Formats: sequence, structure tokens, C-alpha cells
Amino acid sequence: MKTITVPLADRSYDIEISSGVLQDLAASAWLGEYPEIALLSNDEVTPLYAQQLADALQQKGIKVLLFQEPAGEQYKSAEWLLRAWNALADFGLTRRGAVIAIGGGVVGDWAGFVAATWMRGVPFIQIPTTLLAMVDSSVGGKTGINHPRAKNLIGAFHQPQRVVIDIETLRTLPIRQIRAGLAEVIKYGVIADADFFAWLEDNIEKALALDESTLLHIIARSCEIKAEVVGADERESDTVGRRAILNYGHTVGHALEATTEYGQLLHGEAIAIGMQAAARLAQILDICADANELIKRQTQLFQRAGLPVVMPDKSTFEELWRAMTLDKKARGNQVNFILPTKLGHVERVDNVAQDAVLKALR
Amino acid sequence: MKTITVPLADRSYDIEISSGVLQDLAASAWLGEYPEIALLSNDEVTPLYAQQLADALQQKGIKVLLFQEPAGEQYKSAEWLLRAWNALADFGLTRRGAVIAIGGGVVGDWAGFVAATWMRGVPFIQIPTTLLAMVDSSVGGKTGINHPRAKNLIGAFHQPQRVVIDIETLRTLPIRQIRAGLAEVIKYGVIADADFFAWLEDNIEKALALDESTLLHIIARSCEIKAEVVGADERESDTVGRRAILNYGHTVGHALEATTEYGQLLHGEAIAIGMQAAARLAQILDICADANELIKRQTQLFQRAGLPVVMPDKSTFEELWRAMTLDKKARGNQVNFILPTKLGHVERVDNVAQDAVLKALR
Repeated sequence: MKTITVPLADRSYDIEISSGVLQDLAASAWLGEYPEIALLSNDEVTPLYAQQLADALQQKGIKVLLFQEPAGEQYKSAEWLLRAWNALADFGLTRRGAVIAIGGGVVGDWAGFVAATWMRGVPFIQIPTTLLAMVDSSVGGKTGINHPRAKNLIGAFHQPQRVVIDIETLRTLPIRQIRAGLAEVIKYGVIADADFFAWLEDNIEKALALDESTLLHIIARSCEIKAEVVGADERESDTVGRRAILNYGHTVGHALEATTEYGQLLHGEAIAIGMQAAARLAQILDICADANELIKRQTQLFQRAGLPVVMPDKSTFEELWRAMTLDKKARGNQVNFILPTKLGHVERVDNVAQDAVLKALR
Repeated sequence: MKTITVPLADRSYDIEISSGVLQDLAASAWLGEYPEIALLSNDEVTPLYAQQLADALQQKGIKVLLFQEPAGEQYKSAEWLLRAWNALADFGLTRRGAVIAIGGGVVGDWAGFVAATWMRGVPFIQIPTTLLAMVDSSVGGKTGINHPRAKNLIGAFHQPQRVVIDIETLRTLPIRQIRAGLAEVIKYGVIADADFFAWLEDNIEKALALDESTLLHIIARSCEIKAEVVGADERESDTVGRRAILNYGHTVGHALEATTEYGQLLHGEAIAIGMQAAARLAQILDICADANELIKRQTQLFQRAGLPVVMPDKSTFEELWRAMTLDKKARGNQVNFILPTKLGHVERVDNVAQDAVLKALR
């Protein structure tokens, strides 16, 4: 087992990464301290893992609610937030209990926001079952739901008590979801660690084949990089802004998801396209050393990982631009980007001209 | 002007208490730093104060949204939370902007929760216009909405940047609302300051007549007491529990509000009845020195303030007990109370027997 600590003073917590731990999780001493547990999941993960965990917890005498939503980004919505609140009210979850999210990023964000807002915050435990959720949403405490106008418009910071990652769950994950998770993994290489990027170039096929030690390294190193960034800037403050570097690829990525109504593209696919746009924008603005080389290596690694590298036809530039200006990272009508200055380093660039963005998106 | 600082480290803020400041508020330098302001109010306060402030801010070149809900506790609801989120999305409020609540406790809790959850938290400014909101919800950062099952079940802690209290707004407040606010003021005397209680006995009629210096003292001393308590225990932790003393009268009070569907009783009226029940419970449990005297003085002061002192007929004990066990302060099926041990001091009593509560409520 590898343990990564996310350093956040009195909100610090551990991410435990191992293989096969989930089937015996109900026997953990730390879980026994909760007399009531609300297990939030979706209809794909429930028959695979959540139902079994609910039964095991119940056998231990813990009062359990298992509440599931349909699988899909479109259910990270106000409607399903209200349904979860109603389920918790019927169940009678008190502050002594905990909310456990078992599923991907959608379930984690939604369940985390339920935990953040139930009685002004109850303990929250995350069991991510997708690669994307393991390497991204398990670190940092961002929770929330989407609004038709933009992704994650509504939410809160709420750090989990603990994150339990069992890489065995990846064996039931569709390969398209593995590929989408690798987009965020590749992002960590570009923004913070050129050596890790090179290591990925040597090992991407082993990752796609779900080799155990490759996955353990990929997840641990990704969580480490994100934990270091989040520890320096928990709430993405404007003055320090360190956390903003994680948004490489997200300005265009989020806009793409919003304009395609969160259904067509997986998050990882959208940010792969967004990273391609950002790399080209860095080249257009002439701020990146060896931009050609970076774009080439990034494109090739995405292609080997089976990720899209060009824009879908559907969205118009006007729609995308409007979504970008409504993004949380935007300031008024100015759109900010996180752009690479070299492989392994990115910087925030404020107030990028609209025509440069248009050019990068072509 | 009196200024009370709520001491919360990097979340500290000032409460500014004065007379007549609201009409010139738009000219304040600190307000000018926000390029966009979402002003949240209700349909009673808007024509009196919010519209005027919105116009003045707009004349200063600030982009303003004025969004109002109907007046009443029943609109502190999930439905109106969603409507506010939609209004902010249409308006396009970014993180550079701020949410201002102008109104009573309902508007403050609802607007504060909107601010807490919009883009994971944007700056929040409170302009309380009722006595209850001035002495209670202006300190402590509790925000939220009600659920049909219980009051404030859904919410978050979100400290304001600043609270602006203009006692002139009390002159347009119905006298019933002044009386309800005095219930919380009297509470501060019972839980923490016997001298303040005695001072209120000498000045209650002047308060009801809206004498300026009396109001300034009452509001400042109430905010001071609450700020001291909240500063010691911001998030109502179970280990320290200092903040819990503010809930004197609230175990029964909240249950009464829930079982009467948040319409019949004002919050202050419900907690006056709750304080009466708690004082009698302290007597029944034999934990209060001079219980007879305390009950007598508390009852007389409530009566002089024009507050109810006996239970309404409508609620059954079974309904009330169920609502009490679902309260955030409850632990499983055990109900906790904050009970006076003498005038000016209260303590938490865990796991009170059901028949003692039944007796106290008769």
C-alpha cells in the first residue's frame, strides 16, 4: 500500500492506494466509528461494489443508506442534489455519521457537495473507482454540481477524512474511461514534471494494459503532484494562484463540456482537446520554449493513449467563448489560460485576446 | 458608530452598528472594489431599502443584480435556492463580485448559502434589517435553508466580509418582529451575562419604543457576547462545544417551527417558548440554582416584551420529539439540551429522558 498525505493543517488527510482492499473494507476499525453511513453511488457502480459494501457494513451493525443516481455527468445536477438531500432526511443522517462516495468523479463531486452541505458539513470518505477520480478529484476537496450554463458553477470546498483507492476497481472500468483518466495523468507531466512525462512515454501501453505496478506508480505520482500544489494553495486564491496551474487544458475543456451539454465528451477527453488548444495558444503567443517539440510529444502521447486531439465539429466559437467567460477562472470578459512555457512548467496568462484563442482552436 | 470585531483569524470581520448609514452606503470606498454585486432581498425589504441601494450602486458604475424572494420563512427553501443560482448564472456573477443580503434572517441565511456555494464561495456582505438578524445571524457565518423535515438541515459555514447594521431600518419593522428579536437578546442575558439581563429588565420598554441609544447598546452587547462564543468555537465542534450554549431554547424552538411548518411562529417566538421549556426542564432535572426565581424573571421579561410563554396547542408531543431527534444537535435517538444552572450560565445536558421533556412541555 502507498499512502500519500495531502498537507492541509487540521484538514490533512491520507490517500491510501492499494490493490484488493475494497472487499474487506467494512472490517476496518476506522469505519466502525460511524454509527450511520450514507453510501452514495450510481447504478453502474452499485452492483459492482457499493451494494456489497453496504451489506457488509450493515452486517457489522452500522445503519446504512445506499442511494444511487443514474451514471453520467448530466446527473451531477441540482435535481439529484435535492434528491440526495431528501434521501438523507428520510434516513435521518446525523452529524455522527458519514457520507461515503463510491464511484467516479461525478459521484465524488455530487456526494462531496451533499456531505459539505448536510447539517453544514458531515464527515466525507471517498472511494474513487475510475482512474480520473483517483488521480484528480481524490485530492483537493473540490465538490459541487454543474449548472446548465457552466460546469461546477455550484459547489464548496470540503476535504474528505480519507480516500481509499483500490486499483482492482479499474479492471471493471471501460477502456475509454482509462484513456480519459490518462489525460489528467499526462497533464501532471506537462505542468510539473518532465521526467514523469518521459516515464509515461516509456510506459503508456503498460498503463493501458492495467499493469499493477505501473498503475500504482501513476496514481501515487499524480496524487503527489496534486497534493503538493493543493497544499500550497488550498482554495485557489487569486494572490498566490499556485493551484490554478492544475487548470491547464481546462479553460477550453470546461467550455467544450458545457457547450456539448456534458454528455458527448468525457471530462478527460475534453481536457485533452483543451491541452492541445492551450499548447497551440502558447505557441501563437510565443511564450513556450520548443513549442513545436512539446506539441509533438503531447500529441503523440495522447494518440498512443487513444485520446482525441482535435475539436469536435459541433460547438461554435461564439458558444465556446461565452462559456469561457462564465468560467470560474474568468474575470469579467477576460479569459485566462494556463499555458506551458516548457515541458514540465506552466504559467497563468491573463486577458488573452479573442482572436488568438480563435486561431488556437482552428 | 460602534464596531464589534468577530475574531476568527483570517476570517475575522467587523460588524458596524450605527444610525442612518444605509442611505449613503453606495458611496463607501470598500463597496467600490466589487465590479459586480448581486443584491438578494425579499419583496418587503426591496421597496424600502434594496431598490434604492441597487440604483445607487448602478449609478456608481457597478453591475448590479437585484433578486428578491417573497417574504417568509417558507421561502428559505431548496426551490428558492435554485432560483437564486439560476439568477446568478443569468447575471454572470464571477468571483470578483460579491453577494449582499439585505433583509432579515431568512434573507441572510438564504443569500449567505448562495454566496457559500456559488463558485465554491464568493464574498458575502450582510445588511440585516430586523432586530433578530442584527443580534443573531450577523455573527457566526451560519448559512443555509430549511428542509420540510427540519430547520437549517442544509447549509454551510461562510463568514461575511463585513456586516453593516443601520438601526434606522428598525423603524419600518412591525413591532411583532421587534419583540421576536428581543427573545434572542434576552437569551444572551440568561446564557452569559446576568448584569445584561438585569439591564434589560430596566430598559425593555425603551427598547420597544426604539430608543436609539438603548438599541445601540442592546445590539452591540448581543453581538459582543455572540462573537466571544463563536470566536472560541467557530464550527460548533463536539469536543469543545462552547458554541452550543447559543442553542438555549432552540431544541424545542426548532422542533416547534418544524412541526408548524415554519409559518405560524416567528423564530424568536418559538425560541421564547423553547427557553421557557428549557428553564422548566432544568428545574425538573434539579440542576438550576434558584430555578423558581429564574423562571419567574424570564417569564416576566418575555411578557413585558410581548412574547409568548406557553406552547401552542397545535403540535403533538410525538411530532415534536421526532423533530427534536432529527435536529443537528441530536445524537441518534438522544436529545440534548442547553439548560441554565443559574442566571447568566448554561450547560449542555446530554441524553435527557423523554418523560422529563414531556413534563417540561406541559
